[in-house]
Amino acid sequence: MRLSTVSIAGKTTWGIVKGDEFLDVGTVLKTRYADLKAAVTAGLDGVAEAAASAVATPLDAVTWLPVIGNPDKILCVGLNYEMHRKETGRSEVENPTIFARYANSQTGHLQPIIRPKVSTDLDYEGELAVIIGKPGRYISQEDAMSHVAGYACYNDGSIRDFQRHTHQFTPGKNFPDTGAFGPWMMTPDELGPLDDLRLQTRLNGTVVQEATFGQMIFDIARQIEYCSTFTRLEAGDVIVSGTPGGVGAKRTPPLWMKPGDIVEVEIDKLGILRNPIEDEAA
Amino acid sequence: MRLSTVSIAGKTTWGIVKGDEFLDVGTVLKTRYADLKAAVTAGLDGVAEAAASAVATPLDAVTWLPVIGNPDKILCVGLNYEMHRKETGRSEVENPTIFARYANSQTGHLQPIIRPKVSTDLDYEGELAVIIGKPGRYISQEDAMSHVAGYACYNDGSIRDFQRHTHQFTPGKNFPDTGAFGPWMMTPDELGPLDDLRLQTRLNGTVVQEATFGQMIFDIARQIEYCSTFTRLEAGDVIVSGTPGGVGAKRTPPLWMKPGDIVEVEIDKLGILRNPIEDEAA
Repeated sequence: MRLSTVSIAGKTTWGIVKGDEFLDVGTVLKTRYADLKAAVTAGLDGVAEAAASAVATPLDAVTWLPVIGNPDKILCVGLNYEMHRKETGRSEVENPTIFARYANSQTGHLQPIIRPKVSTDLDYEGELAVIIGKPGRYISQEDAMSHVAGYACYNDGSIRDFQRHTHQFTPGKNFPDTGAFGPWMMTPDELGPLDDLRLQTRLNGTVVQEATFGQMIFDIARQIEYCSTFTRLEAGDVIVSGTPGGVGAKRTPPLWMKPGDIVEVEIDKLGILRNPIEDEAA
Repeated sequence: MRLSTVSIAGKTTWGIVKGDEFLDVGTVLKTRYADLKAAVTAGLDGVAEAAASAVATPLDAVTWLPVIGNPDKILCVGLNYEMHRKETGRSEVENPTIFARYANSQTGHLQPIIRPKVSTDLDYEGELAVIIGKPGRYISQEDAMSHVAGYACYNDGSIRDFQRHTHQFTPGKNFPDTGAFGPWMMTPDELGPLDDLRLQTRLNGTVVQEATFGQMIFDIARQIEYCSTFTRLEAGDVIVSGTPGGVGAKRTPPLWMKPGDIVEVEIDKLGILRNPIEDEAA
């Protein structure tokens, strides 16, 4: 099942993507679930059944919003592919590197990623996002995958000069409209095993990042185990699982995204997240 | 005006602290404001007036909760006093060091700060918390103080080994029941100028940290300016403005907080935040 949050004629709702149609399940279940996060919290109970009575809209008539617009936490994993770790010159560590993105930095599929007026160092980071379904603390690696509600494409857009103002990444990872999340989340039963799935980031059609998830240093189960050690994971929380090598900042000369560019994050079976780049309004 | 979020006989509400009484304004205004964050968002409109018809409860009969339990963002400033910067061996930087705490890591006045079962490296960090009242982006230093709704004591309790697992602080700053926030926020008109106010952290009555806010490297106006460059500040957001020198981790031998200890953060005029330390339940 593929689940999205969208706006149709100015009204925000959520539902199921089936073929080239969006089924407005959110309106059918509006007295039960305030939003997709609420439905995820309830284990998507009744969602598939409600699709039968949902109004269908062609996909090209919806405005895509971040899959989960209001997660309590977005936990981002840094330096989680060997090639990216090496290109950044960071040493090996025994635990995942975790930093935070706030919910108000997100944007949806086909919405512009915004280059802010205070920087030109706008970089892409194609990633797999993991949406937590079942809350928990001290989750073991063995149990971890049962806590996953679904997966989505994510572009962890980064303002590199702000990221490097100090040793903490937060400022470079939280500019408005830089975290692209969509078009949908896919449930684990439909996506299947992760290891052989390939992630590709393309800038104006040119492949700039490529890896399979089997190449992660810390896999999804280990990420969930580690994060749930220091925080209680809640339903709707998002773990953004790290980016492969090939970021623009580590090229010579650096490859920054600029207005008019199109950036895509494609994951096998899961889909394509596409965003144009625009300058912030003056 | 002093404003708190509390629980009385198991019911969560918010209101005004006056003398040794809590005035339950939240119940009077419940159709208008869902919580203190909502009242802050509305510029505390009608709050002082509602106190006249609010039920009073003695302060020793309330359970103190985090002043704002559900901020969209808690932005923490690191290394913001020269003595603390030097004791950590960090170099001078031109911008504040910012890391994130999630809302579910907070606790209230007199509630236990929890030492988790995975670590004994539990450290204190007494700080001044700034609660944002008026949202904004690209706020100038000149305008910054008009965006402040109030101030509170904060103990940015830290699990130092997790903080140092990698170069990102997030894991060490987000354990449940480690971020103590209270007992109340005080409006700027009542607190007055900040520079000469003294912050003191005491562990079992012994002073372990002491500074005046005039000793901050980046003052509150500069912190608001910088944070609002990379994110839109929302009403109810909290900026935790940094801790002075004297943390337990940099003493020889290290001074960790342990069950049975009492930690206090006192700020002149503002009040005392007091928390016992307890071990996590087995």
